[in-house]
Amino acid sequence: MQVKKYRNEEQRFLVEGAKSVKEILHSDYEVELIVGVPHFLSQISTLYKAELVECSEKELSSIGTFQFNETAIAIAKMKPNKKPILTHNELLLGLDDIRDPGNLGTIIRIADWYGIKNIIASENTTDFYSPKVVTSSMGSFTRINMYYTHLSNFLSNSNRVAYGAFLDGEDVHNIDIEPNSVLVIGNESNGISEEVESVIDRRITIPRYGKAESLNAGVATAIILDNLVRLQK
Amino acid sequence: MQVKKYRNEEQRFLVEGAKSVKEILHSDYEVELIVGVPHFLSQISTLYKAELVECSEKELSSIGTFQFNETAIAIAKMKPNKKPILTHNELLLGLDDIRDPGNLGTIIRIADWYGIKNIIASENTTDFYSPKVVTSSMGSFTRINMYYTHLSNFLSNSNRVAYGAFLDGEDVHNIDIEPNSVLVIGNESNGISEEVESVIDRRITIPRYGKAESLNAGVATAIILDNLVRLQK
Repeated sequence: MQVKKYRNEEQRFLVEGAKSVKEILHSDYEVELIVGVPHFLSQISTLYKAELVECSEKELSSIGTFQFNETAIAIAKMKPNKKPILTHNELLLGLDDIRDPGNLGTIIRIADWYGIKNIIASENTTDFYSPKVVTSSMGSFTRINMYYTHLSNFLSNSNRVAYGAFLDGEDVHNIDIEPNSVLVIGNESNGISEEVESVIDRRITIPRYGKAESLNAGVATAIILDNLVRLQK
Repeated sequence: MQVKKYRNEEQRFLVEGAKSVKEILHSDYEVELIVGVPHFLSQISTLYKAELVECSEKELSSIGTFQFNETAIAIAKMKPNKKPILTHNELLLGLDDIRDPGNLGTIIRIADWYGIKNIIASENTTDFYSPKVVTSSMGSFTRINMYYTHLSNFLSNSNRVAYGAFLDGEDVHNIDIEPNSVLVIGNESNGISEEVESVIDRRITIPRYGKAESLNAGVATAIILDNLVRLQK
């Protein structure tokens, strides 16, 4: 389940660490199995349907992907990749080819902080269910719905205003913000692809005061979302 | 030089990858040695004093810390940890026990984006010269001066307004910003320590619209700096 091919065949994914396991138990995901140390399992309500398997810390760290996990892992059912029902005026996040699982997890956590419910991702964006994405989202993966699709088609068929993050564009500190919109963030090295760029309505940029050439994708997402929600208040 | 003890004995540090090596050559650091592939070395001006050593990609990847480095590494002289001369009204960043080298590198890059020149760090903050910090700062380490000191003493002896990032406090979207100030960011897990908290003048917070429990230290630094520079405009 640490490999995408097997995750997709099984339609199950791995959740590692006490915090993430607790979060998924409180979510609408179906949890099938929890493997944990006695101390952790004793905190789990018997109301959950998941099968519980007790093990030692040593056994646990040999199963998981991450060395620091010494408390619990869970196996849960993936949700189908279904077009979400969107609310009018709901701010969406669009991801164009985000490759690094740690970045994607961080972006999911940031989206959750800013109250985003739905992320629309290009098909080449890294897998939502990979262990590193799940872990680095710090539990936020349970509250965000991520839909993989042909991103430029989605944007051109949508009536939302598509804002794109570029190194040039309108200053994000002072833009007129449309209520019905989607913020598009591009690939870590190459930014937004040409195909997606062609359907962007408004280019926006984070003003720079010093000399760094760029900001990483997660940091840029956070700064822009912070401004969009501030301007929408 | 990948180990702090040896870096400190030698007062030299390692710079890996074409971008970082080019940035340090354009900085005021003294570069003693560059090991690179022929294609990279041919781009280096003969005006630099550094010794040049040619090698193959394969040899290079066996020397460095990071697998993806197949172009160049440099050895440069560390700068002494000296109290910087500060300009009146210069915005400072204070770091209290930032432990993760990747986070520190990201914070240095963000600080550089926002035009910060000086970071004041607690003595337990991770080492500025570790390879992961240097690499993840994406060249920004050459433009930022980092001074390690007793942070709470520094703050209490300074006439600057100390803003601290907390999960409660004044909304960073609407604060009165003092021109002569320092923004303090705390440890990834525990936030600002009690000792440093006791010398904070203004508690500030990033408003939350969703359910994530927190943001990571780099992301929080970016959002707050973006607001501070916007409000100072």
